[in-house]
Amino acid sequence: MSLPVRVSIVEVGPRDGLQNEKVTLSPQIRAELISRLAAAGLSRIEAGSFVSPKAVPQMAHTDATLALVVRDNLRLSVLAPNLRGLAAALSAGADEIAVFAAASETFSKRNIHCSIEESLARYAEVVAEARRYGVMARGYISCVLGCPYEGEIDSGRVVSVASALLEMGCFEVSLGDTIGVGAPLQARRMVERVARVAPLDKIAVHFHDTYGQALANIFACLEVGVCVVDSSVAGLGGCPFAPGAAGNVATEDVVYMLERMDVETGVSLDRLLAAGAFACRELKRAPASRVAQAYAARCGGRAETPLGG
Amino acid sequence: MSLPVRVSIVEVGPRDGLQNEKVTLSPQIRAELISRLAAAGLSRIEAGSFVSPKAVPQMAHTDATLALVVRDNLRLSVLAPNLRGLAAALSAGADEIAVFAAASETFSKRNIHCSIEESLARYAEVVAEARRYGVMARGYISCVLGCPYEGEIDSGRVVSVASALLEMGCFEVSLGDTIGVGAPLQARRMVERVARVAPLDKIAVHFHDTYGQALANIFACLEVGVCVVDSSVAGLGGCPFAPGAAGNVATEDVVYMLERMDVETGVSLDRLLAAGAFACRELKRAPASRVAQAYAARCGGRAETPLGG
Repeated sequence: MSLPVRVSIVEVGPRDGLQNEKVTLSPQIRAELISRLAAAGLSRIEAGSFVSPKAVPQMAHTDATLALVVRDNLRLSVLAPNLRGLAAALSAGADEIAVFAAASETFSKRNIHCSIEESLARYAEVVAEARRYGVMARGYISCVLGCPYEGEIDSGRVVSVASALLEMGCFEVSLGDTIGVGAPLQARRMVERVARVAPLDKIAVHFHDTYGQALANIFACLEVGVCVVDSSVAGLGGCPFAPGAAGNVATEDVVYMLERMDVETGVSLDRLLAAGAFACRELKRAPASRVAQAYAARCGGRAETPLGG
Repeated sequence: MSLPVRVSIVEVGPRDGLQNEKVTLSPQIRAELISRLAAAGLSRIEAGSFVSPKAVPQMAHTDATLALVVRDNLRLSVLAPNLRGLAAALSAGADEIAVFAAASETFSKRNIHCSIEESLARYAEVVAEARRYGVMARGYISCVLGCPYEGEIDSGRVVSVASALLEMGCFEVSLGDTIGVGAPLQARRMVERVARVAPLDKIAVHFHDTYGQALANIFACLEVGVCVVDSSVAGLGGCPFAPGAAGNVATEDVVYMLERMDVETGVSLDRLLAAGAFACRELKRAPASRVAQAYAARCGGRAETPLGG
């Protein structure tokens, strides 16, 4: 097994990360964070969400956020769960949209208040409409290795949701271990099953570090050819199902691992660390990234000190 | 690449962990911790060190610690850097001793105040004498993937130190990434080079989580047949070269990964979490283990709450 020469990182901190933080950042600060992440070399960034600001106040004014970011070699994606969200995304000039399905029936009902089938029917309309406007759609699948309500999830269910999302026109599916319970072998086997129905370059992996398994899972998936990895700067977001535990894998930790293995990412670790330090300062929290913690300790500084770049 | 059916965990928390903690625990508490770890199913435990108590006060009275532990299906190992340490180890009834060499010349001089060659000459005497008493000796090698003073370390240097340790009669070499800088590919390549001169069952890996790479490194090494892994309950020890950063990989995180991949360890995760919670309570610190943090968060309790078993 050999690793890909180059891996694309999809930075999800400004959406998946920030929407799970207690502090709500202004559109200006969110735009500044996105700009700093772009300057660090991240060219795919999830920038916000067009959902009800009552339900997710952290993502309010995503349109203003997008308007403030200069887009140069940068694809900004937003969550658009329905036709209304899509209209707002199109009008805000999103480069890409994302829809969010689950591999667990119970999680789907509790999280987006409909069955998997109902969600897929709705997304089919959203994706078709987006494509009419030349906007690509990404499909997320949550709970691919376990569900907080149902426990273990059979990979067959992941395969069928992935097939449905790709058939309706999603250019990529992101397989999310939402509660971070998976270990490398399972993660790899699940990806291999999905890879039987989807080309590998349409498969992204999205791991959470709740049980510390994220990097090992990523490595195991890279070994079978996955080359798109989601991550969140400074590990922003935490775990909604275990407050206090780690959440999204930190982009710094992913970039460090890839850089040390000579896998190209196009990302400057120093600039990324500085962007993460900026976010943590605004959120008044410490980074969950082990790399950020180690650099801060080595520099004799606190986690919130900018570390370079 | 397939994983080993069973992995032996060498628990280093009571020595490598505790010697790097600010709080010094009494021999009674250390013995209690060792007993709890043994009750969790860990059968190889590094229990202390026969070095100067002035240099390492945390390890003073290792003899008293050993005397307090009931040994049933349990191998207790101690660091014995010279013949005097060995005599003390033999008289305390250690089941196994360990010597501590480096793959970096500068690290050897700064850490144990002699060249690699001088250290190996001394250890040859210690190991030979231990074997005369029927006591097995383990050889540690530090800085196998990087040195805080010299930077990158060529694997060829690891190979020659490993060969020397095995030739002098060590039953096993533990390859330590002391500052946690290595990533999975390098870790695996280094192990593969050592495996050309040593049988795989004589090679243990010892990773630090400073940059979050430890579990990924372990997974990559298991894939090439390594089946002995060092780890420290609750991630005790931290990183002496970056205070505030993570240190030894946490045993809980290793056991979680192996258990989820159906690799046998003989360890009860619940009992292990309880032992880690006990240690953290005594040390007045939070566990560095992501698994311990997630379980504590899930239980709605604080990190120091015993979590089961």
